Amino acid sequence: MDDRQTTLTGALGDESPGRSAPRQRRAAFFVSDSTGITAETLGSALLANFPGIDVEHHTLPFVDGDVRVEEVLAEVGRAAAAGLAPVVFTTVKQASLRIGLSAAPALVIDLLGGPLARLEEAFGVRSSELPGAYHGLGDLEKYHRRMRAVEYAIEHDDGQSLRALDLADVIIVAPSRCGKTPTTMYLALQYGLLVANYPLTDDDFPTETLPGPLVRFAARCFGLTTTPVRLTEVRTQRRPRSRYASLEQCTLELRRAEELYRRAGVPFVNSSTKSVEEMSAVILQTMKLRT
Amino acid sequence: MDDRQTTLTGALGDESPGRSAPRQRRAAFFVSDSTGITAETLGSALLANFPGIDVEHHTLPFVDGDVRVEEVLAEVGRAAAAGLAPVVFTTVKQASLRIGLSAAPALVIDLLGGPLARLEEAFGVRSSELPGAYHGLGDLEKYHRRMRAVEYAIEHDDGQSLRALDLADVIIVAPSRCGKTPTTMYLALQYGLLVANYPLTDDDFPTETLPGPLVRFAARCFGLTTTPVRLTEVRTQRRPRSRYASLEQCTLELRRAEELYRRAGVPFVNSSTKSVEEMSAVILQTMKLRT
Repeated sequence: MDDRQTTLTGALGDESPGRSAPRQRRAAFFVSDSTGITAETLGSALLANFPGIDVEHHTLPFVDGDVRVEEVLAEVGRAAAAGLAPVVFTTVKQASLRIGLSAAPALVIDLLGGPLARLEEAFGVRSSELPGAYHGLGDLEKYHRRMRAVEYAIEHDDGQSLRALDLADVIIVAPSRCGKTPTTMYLALQYGLLVANYPLTDDDFPTETLPGPLVRFAARCFGLTTTPVRLTEVRTQRRPRSRYASLEQCTLELRRAEELYRRAGVPFVNSSTKSVEEMSAVILQTMKLRT
Repeated sequence: MDDRQTTLTGALGDESPGRSAPRQRRAAFFVSDSTGITAETLGSALLANFPGIDVEHHTLPFVDGDVRVEEVLAEVGRAAAAGLAPVVFTTVKQASLRIGLSAAPALVIDLLGGPLARLEEAFGVRSSELPGAYHGLGDLEKYHRRMRAVEYAIEHDDGQSLRALDLADVIIVAPSRCGKTPTTMYLALQYGLLVANYPLTDDDFPTETLPGPLVRFAARCFGLTTTPVRLTEVRTQRRPRSRYASLEQCTLELRRAEELYRRAGVPFVNSSTKSVEEMSAVILQTMKLRT
């Protein structure tokens, strides 16, 4: 079915059945003229496709001059000498520094170079070669928006305050320990959205509707659920052997929460198989909050 | 000096001096089989190099089957028909879907394809073609770590609690409104670090050392400062025409804070020209918290 897989596996050596081949060990360097976040994100996403290879990750940010390039080359050289056959992912923009980095004793993958050249051609203008991606006047406004969003999220975490609930872009509701708080913070920090969250406790469940303070804002509510086993596990870390953490209690609360979401027309997602980023993306998409 | 710049600018048309050329308008689509964060991050970083072009951004996450590919093609087609000459940045992994997307009436830039092929060659194994970057068993541990970090950050925000200060990976200190809270949350969410923050108020300045609760943890402290003008501006949004927001008060507090950092040997950074991501990267680097 898949000739290439077979060939490549075979190329690793003729191990006898039952004895596993030694795993490849590699060093990966994420090199950036700014924070390193883009290089790290894309480089890690690429490496995640090779689960059979053990990779040491190193992020080298603020590589913005010849001295820093020399430091990178030295560090990559040490990894190469240690037999770790390095891979360098770079998002450095300045041409002279990129040339310097290409001398590294490694597979050097320039994540910007190819796409930039194609964009230059399509746009008919040359790229600016400024280091860092997000400089300029937009920053201050973005900064204020995020600061306000994070403070709003802290104030309105776990139903602690209802002061400015009417300003919320979205209100995340769920039983305790379904992931409300990290998802709230992610949406606030990454997108500058005003996000409140509100716990569903036993008291809320006898009703046919959302908890009182939320009824007016039903259209902005988004629910989280999870699996009973997962919830028991997470709650056990907080209060071992409590009724709160028991499988019975978790099963009951999740069943009631899902019934409530359906009755109130609140969209919801199961957090047990999703990362914070994925839940945030689903919420943005469902609530049409993408800009 | 720069022939290419001249040629390309000229190619845009012979505008008479003093009259600016009409700006190019384009639509950009960030297409992913997962959250879209990687496509959005790298695509935006690439587009930021073309400040002269107005770009409408559209993120299309969870493109994981033929139906979603058709939806993308339809949406890109509408932008093309509206004269927005679309650019599609994609991180979709499955080969059949990538072929589908390549039919879009747009410049299609496959951010993964080229680098993946080079890694396959270097590693001698084929990539797994799993959608999404961060699945697998690592997730649950990472999730717990982040959840704990965000809750720790909320509890220890602005010196509100000192309960578990001894567990902090880093303690951010600064006068009010220098950016402690968003930076704290970013480090917690993105890196799962335990980060506390502590305000420097007038009362702390007469001393020669850090505020009492922090003295034991001086080696884990990191300071923020900013410019007096910036601080006045940010504080004015909170309390207009107050002594707190006055240029005199801001100048005084920042001068005293910087003196304190120097006396106590606390590294610090000026937040006025840095994004939250950049400050976080500097803190990780300085405090050797990169893993």
